[in-house]
Amino acid sequence: MQRIHFNEVVTRDGFQNEAAFIPTDAKVALIDALSQCGYAKIEVTSFTSPKAIPMLRDAEAVMGRIQRVPGVEYTVLVPNQRGAERALEARADELNLVMSTSETHNLANLRMPREQSFAGLAAVIDQVAGSVPVNVSLSTCFGCPMEGEVAQDEVLRWADRFASRGVRGLTVCDTTGMAHPVQVERLCRALRERFDGVQLTLHFHNTRGMGLANVLAAARVGIDRFDGSLGGLGGCPYAPGASGNISSEDALHMLQAMGHETGIDLDRVLAAARALPQIVGHDVPGQLAKAGRITDLHPAPATVARLREALA
Amino acid sequence: MQRIHFNEVVTRDGFQNEAAFIPTDAKVALIDALSQCGYAKIEVTSFTSPKAIPMLRDAEAVMGRIQRVPGVEYTVLVPNQRGAERALEARADELNLVMSTSETHNLANLRMPREQSFAGLAAVIDQVAGSVPVNVSLSTCFGCPMEGEVAQDEVLRWADRFASRGVRGLTVCDTTGMAHPVQVERLCRALRERFDGVQLTLHFHNTRGMGLANVLAAARVGIDRFDGSLGGLGGCPYAPGASGNISSEDALHMLQAMGHETGIDLDRVLAAARALPQIVGHDVPGQLAKAGRITDLHPAPATVARLREALA
Repeated sequence: MQRIHFNEVVTRDGFQNEAAFIPTDAKVALIDALSQCGYAKIEVTSFTSPKAIPMLRDAEAVMGRIQRVPGVEYTVLVPNQRGAERALEARADELNLVMSTSETHNLANLRMPREQSFAGLAAVIDQVAGSVPVNVSLSTCFGCPMEGEVAQDEVLRWADRFASRGVRGLTVCDTTGMAHPVQVERLCRALRERFDGVQLTLHFHNTRGMGLANVLAAARVGIDRFDGSLGGLGGCPYAPGASGNISSEDALHMLQAMGHETGIDLDRVLAAARALPQIVGHDVPGQLAKAGRITDLHPAPATVARLREALA
Repeated sequence: MQRIHFNEVVTRDGFQNEAAFIPTDAKVALIDALSQCGYAKIEVTSFTSPKAIPMLRDAEAVMGRIQRVPGVEYTVLVPNQRGAERALEARADELNLVMSTSETHNLANLRMPREQSFAGLAAVIDQVAGSVPVNVSLSTCFGCPMEGEVAQDEVLRWADRFASRGVRGLTVCDTTGMAHPVQVERLCRALRERFDGVQLTLHFHNTRGMGLANVLAAARVGIDRFDGSLGGLGGCPYAPGASGNISSEDALHMLQAMGHETGIDLDRVLAAARALPQIVGHDVPGQLAKAGRITDLHPAPATVARLREALA
């Protein structure tokens, strides 16, 4: 079983979808707790315009106040060159750039055509070359909620354009939970064949309940890096009421049960997951915090002892 | 991709875990709707003592009033010879017998040792021989919430004892959602090797989010029969707040997306799933009814049209 590297995205991707502002103190405390868990990367925040994403308007403060733990990479989302400057000033370990493989989704989400996004991100890559590694997150790789199917060749084409620019990693995102296992296997195989030297990360949502099945499918064809969001926080504006990102604790629990080395202290992750509803003010979709691990046993009811006695 | 046969257990396994009595009319109407969906089997009810399971005290009335559709097997749970008599009188197409592979779970759930359960069920098998096919559901095959691990050999031993008695089918149940994909593959392979002529059905719960991953794992080693519960109804007294059975609509949606022929009209299943919260009086865990199918597209926001115009 291959070693799995797991990234936590709750304070960026998860919180970004929350309605009520989460205080800086709570963000810092959560990230400090997550830093003790053994994650490969923590996506701390986003250096976007505070007007565009008010939830993450405290990006500098959060980056300045977290206690960094050696071995964990603190990555940040960066939309443009101004964001990259801010991220470098804040000593981010990695910049995570983002664009969609679907034209309509890119127009809806980033308000520009994909070619314009690519040019902007290419400029960022050139700008930071040699200072910090760059990851590019490609949205809607398994389908666009407005366009529908996104051809695998289209995904590979954008991946190739960024790989040619020397990015360290590519994150292949199922932005609205449209992936199914057969599609995941097919795309992951193609990615692994073509981008041997590139860190490949898979980012799944559980919108239609297939999140962990897709993790399984990807791991079975050799993918060893995954994003997850504590508690399954996140979500999708096109599926109100549905789950968001895969829950980190649920995914890690499955991977560990299967025998994968993850480097994760699941007890600490679970403790953080159990504290999450209080931070966000509502129940979260993750199941493990409610159900407990498969190794958490329960006492037999008193009737069993009485029966055993009667039978002895 | 192999043809998948899917069984619906919501009106028995699902409803049995509901607190408030569901009127006979509502049960009959739901089963009649499910009969139009293309399920292989519908587990209608249980011929248990009305005192033990008040929810299913109307077993005869439900069986008498449903409109049977040719091609669908109407199966019922039967705990003992008295239940078998009632089931035969009600013209059940199949008797589903049940015991646990874990001694503690059997004592807790059926209030007798496994050997006593086996003797009782063997008597039922002899009693109905030649009249209707018999299926045996083995509980806790992937772990017992009180004992922990259930050895694979123990599961195979009980399966073998029933197979030797000439039962048509065996349902291998992950009663409290303790299975993980590696374990599923291992046990399913062993079962398929040993019980070639027996209908093998896998019954998963989604207690820890792994339900559809386990379906995937089982399907990948050739299992072609699954139980599911509409809306993911069901549940586990040892994990309050956690999900219950795998959701039929979520599982079927995944299997169809992967290219499996299921014989199921998913639109009808979804319509039934969307009506379910009103029947049970609360939200249900199934995701697809909220999120829609992966092929259900959404209109792009108005900003996209304006952007396209400006760019033209």
